[in-house]
Amino acid sequence: MVRLNVRIALAYQVQALGADFIFNIQAAYTPLQKVSAEQLVISPMGTCEQGIDEATHNRTLRLHAPTGPLALTYSATVDLHHHLALTTDLQEIPVAQLPMSVLPYLYPSRYCQSDVLGSMVMGLFGSQPPGYARVVAVQTWVQSHVTFKSNTSNSATSALDTLRDRVGVCRDFAHLMIALCRALNMPARFSTGTDFGADPVLGPPDFHAYVEVYLSNRWYIFDPSGTAIPLGFIRIGTGRDAADVSIATIFGGVQSEQPVISVSADPGPHGQYMLPAASVYAISTA
Amino acid sequence: MVRLNVRIALAYQVQALGADFIFNIQAAYTPLQKVSAEQLVISPMGTCEQGIDEATHNRTLRLHAPTGPLALTYSATVDLHHHLALTTDLQEIPVAQLPMSVLPYLYPSRYCQSDVLGSMVMGLFGSQPPGYARVVAVQTWVQSHVTFKSNTSNSATSALDTLRDRVGVCRDFAHLMIALCRALNMPARFSTGTDFGADPVLGPPDFHAYVEVYLSNRWYIFDPSGTAIPLGFIRIGTGRDAADVSIATIFGGVQSEQPVISVSADPGPHGQYMLPAASVYAISTA
Amino acid sequence: MVRLNVRIALAYQVQALGADFIFNIQAAYTPLQKVSAEQLVISPMGTCEQGIDEATHNRTLRLHAPTGPLALTYSATVDLHHHLALTTDLQEIPVAQLPMSVLPYLYPSRYCQSDVLGSMVMGLFGSQPPGYARVVAVQTWVQSHVTFKSNTSNSATSALDTLRDRVGVCRDFAHLMIALCRALNMPARFSTGTDFGADPVLGPPDFHAYVEVYLSNRWYIFDPSGTAIPLGFIRIGTGRDAADVSIATIFGGVQSEQPVISVSADPGPHGQYMLPAASVYAISTA
Amino acid sequence: MVRLNVRIALAYQVQALGADFIFNIQAAYTPLQKVSAEQLVISPMGTCEQGIDEATHNRTLRLHAPTGPLALTYSATVDLHHHLALTTDLQEIPVAQLPMSVLPYLYPSRYCQSDVLGSMVMGLFGSQPPGYARVVAVQTWVQSHVTFKSNTSNSATSALDTLRDRVGVCRDFAHLMIALCRALNMPARFSTGTDFGADPVLGPPDFHAYVEVYLSNRWYIFDPSGTAIPLGFIRIGTGRDAADVSIATIFGGVQSEQPVISVSADPGPHGQYMLPAASVYAISTA
Repeated sequence: MVRLNVRIALAYQVQALGADFIFNIQAAYTPLQKVSAEQLVISPMGTCEQGIDEATHNRTLRLHAPTGPLALTYSATVDLHHHLALTTDLQEIPVAQLPMSVLPYLYPSRYCQSDVLGSMVMGLFGSQPPGYARVVAVQTWVQSHVTFKSNTSNSATSALDTLRDRVGVCRDFAHLMIALCRALNMPARFSTGTDFGADPVLGPPDFHAYVEVYLSNRWYIFDPSGTAIPLGFIRIGTGRDAADVSIATIFGGVQSEQPVISVSADPGPHGQYMLPAASVYAISTA
Repeated sequence: MVRLNVRIALAYQVQALGADFIFNIQAAYTPLQKVSAEQLVISPMGTCEQGIDEATHNRTLRLHAPTGPLALTYSATVDLHHHLALTTDLQEIPVAQLPMSVLPYLYPSRYCQSDVLGSMVMGLFGSQPPGYARVVAVQTWVQSHVTFKSNTSNSATSALDTLRDRVGVCRDFAHLMIALCRALNMPARFSTGTDFGADPVLGPPDFHAYVEVYLSNRWYIFDPSGTAIPLGFIRIGTGRDAADVSIATIFGGVQSEQPVISVSADPGPHGQYMLPAASVYAISTA
Repeated sequence: MVRLNVRIALAYQVQALGADFIFNIQAAYTPLQKVSAEQLVISPMGTCEQGIDEATHNRTLRLHAPTGPLALTYSATVDLHHHLALTTDLQEIPVAQLPMSVLPYLYPSRYCQSDVLGSMVMGLFGSQPPGYARVVAVQTWVQSHVTFKSNTSNSATSALDTLRDRVGVCRDFAHLMIALCRALNMPARFSTGTDFGADPVLGPPDFHAYVEVYLSNRWYIFDPSGTAIPLGFIRIGTGRDAADVSIATIFGGVQSEQPVISVSADPGPHGQYMLPAASVYAISTA
Repeated sequence: MVRLNVRIALAYQVQALGADFIFNIQAAYTPLQKVSAEQLVISPMGTCEQGIDEATHNRTLRLHAPTGPLALTYSATVDLHHHLALTTDLQEIPVAQLPMSVLPYLYPSRYCQSDVLGSMVMGLFGSQPPGYARVVAVQTWVQSHVTFKSNTSNSATSALDTLRDRVGVCRDFAHLMIALCRALNMPARFSTGTDFGADPVLGPPDFHAYVEVYLSNRWYIFDPSGTAIPLGFIRIGTGRDAADVSIATIFGGVQSEQPVISVSADPGPHGQYMLPAASVYAISTA
């Protein structure tokens, strides 16, 4: 088990007329990710509505804020019971055997237009035998053809844009990898969370976007932008792509400050909890 | 809107071998009951799993505690947007028109054996026209035939027992009223929460059990044990009866201390929030 | 795979004022039970509402019938992909590790008052090591203490009644076994379906009630009334007990005729499908 | 009530290696759309898996077909209890008051890239007061700027393509109207079904795609391609766009024949059922 203490602080200046916010920032409750303590504080304290989506377990927090400053702090202790598998054991599942609930992750979505990438992926990966290694080949292809560079993309950037521009941030790497996987009939989804142990060049922990691919009846984590430690990811939300799990969707005039995020691993009073480190295993948290 | 600040503190001594707990103590997230801030702290901090039932929105918290003391504190700010209706507007809904999801609340359950009360209720209430007044007649019948007395019932006491013994606590009043309603083909369910403004004789706020009956396409609150102020109830869970929404289900040897609960109404910085008071309206929070 | 062709014909005489019916008679759609063709015909054709419960997959059919005859015929081709396990591999799951969705099947229900059987089961089965063999011991105890006899129980008969009277039908055997299992902290649920290959003494196929116990992360079938072939069971519904999955719940004056049920195994055009037979394996269809 | 008899026949030639199909062709079960009889026959009879999505009620049918012909026939009697509203009564709902489950229909999706249409819609419709009339203005704009023409678009065509090309079929009209509505913060979704009473020029009944917009707490039907009679639509599926509710998703080499669809209105034995006709009311079936 890995125990993480996370604190997320968001701050905004809401302009005249107020604004509505829909946030996805709380740690998901899943059988493998248990939230053992948590606190949510919003200031000024308006009415805030919380919900959990039945299918994805994503947690949604909605509020209307009046003109002026808005501050939101979420802190939690999150226990991760990772499922670790030998990568050589993992198989792609034929469409006929996928659980019904997984089928939507085969279809194209706003930022992952897999429906137009069929010929391309057949050319690149069609001759490779199905399995974990083929997913890694897709990830490697993305990593070697796209350059990580901040501020090179925006909220409208899709996998097709990234395929053309060959530059982007974690979200863009994830969208492109997902689109390629789906074009190969591999169910793939978009996950948001907090990263851990990122390259010091990239600065302190931030929100992160990564990929999950369905293999051998579980969702396994892939991190195509690749500088962080997946055993330290806290899952916030999963969806078809970023349209489903935006950290904050805002209706109204708002100035956003930079989020302040801290994540630390807790070794436990007797050092009994594992600290996140690089892993040779395939990792699943759902 | 009514804003309530609630704090629930539970304490246990766990005996040798440890114990497993399943708690239902957190305020439900419903469209009319919004949780604007909250905090959960458990000591010693073991791994705790949280879940939300898809159909009822009940929140479940499960943990294994080692031998020794266990303390759990939950605090929240809960905003209640009550739906208020004129009692004379409320109708019983014929079985053929009930939403499918409501049908289970017509069936008998562990503590509400409505299936054997058909003749009795037809004799008592069968000649009365369907509607809100008939539900009130059932409630009044329970109130006038059962005496409230602490420590007269236990976790095995059912509506049939209460019908025979004519004594009990809030839970027993609720079970009997539910059984009678279902025998009349009125969907009825069991709700747990915190009370508010109880008779000073009964002491400080406590957990409470009350009834919801489905009328005119909503669940309306009835409080057959009757000394509290329904506009101040925070909903924790709803179910077929107490078997579904026990405050704490414990597996293992445990000594329980008395829960310490506080609930206070917050008038808001400008006195803009309503304070709970007796109401002539029918009240719904779901 | 086992392929079964089933036909269920129900007939009623509805008396003055008409009647409302809630039926649970259609084969469940589960990942292991696939319905490859089906037909539903109701005469006279009124409006009939169909639904599927999100949690259990039970299918509900509701209709209002006018005075006069009502006939309902359901036929289906059902493909069963049984999960078979070595009984010696199956373990009881500690409460702390049960999926959240399984917890309700630990609690007492209308006909399975497990909450008052704790001392009894500890005396009978407490010294036996947890596992599949202990579930079999419970089943064997029920079989050796209860006599199967038609028309000895009714819709109000509960596990406690059967424990006292020691006689009943499949439903009563199931309720008692479930109550004993839950008292041992084994999740257990009630299933309805059609039987197969019953003792010729009992006549043609009928509706059947049996038990599922949660072991090693699956629900396994037990058939305490014991004369049929579980590999030939078609699942209709599952619930806490018979209150959840009554074949027909009727509101109004109605005379019921005997259901006419046929079930036959289809070997397939090339004899490629298995025919139901006794099995030494533990069987799961969910 | 409107009673419709529908029959859908699909036929394919499956090429070497077989193919997997995911169909969405069965009438949805909703509180206002009741399926009173139905039949599904597939030939050759392979194993076919059926499912119902919990959130949308869409019905999915999945099968693997061997090389050779495949024929699927679905027939049903569908009773529509339309909710009719005065258009002048219908309001747009502010984001803060939308049910949580409706929020996803505000977000962009594969074929409805509303996120890049904000300035355009503010220019076109921003000065118009919110309400039903504004939705009609969006629909009218689409109708007057896009020409209906068969075979002008394909499965990759999105709202942005249609905005540029100004030509398309029902699916394209729907995608564009949805994208414009979402850009105005109106929840909008894509519905598939069968049409009714289409222009004789367009030939016999076919599958149809139309729009639902969330107003005054219900989903109301809009038919931007506009030649059919909405009171005669049978709902099959609803989703974010066509990616969610494709009539048939096929994996493998397959030749498709033209679907053969018939829909007829049944006046009832005593002429008591309404026949679909043009309506001045706003129509909801969910």
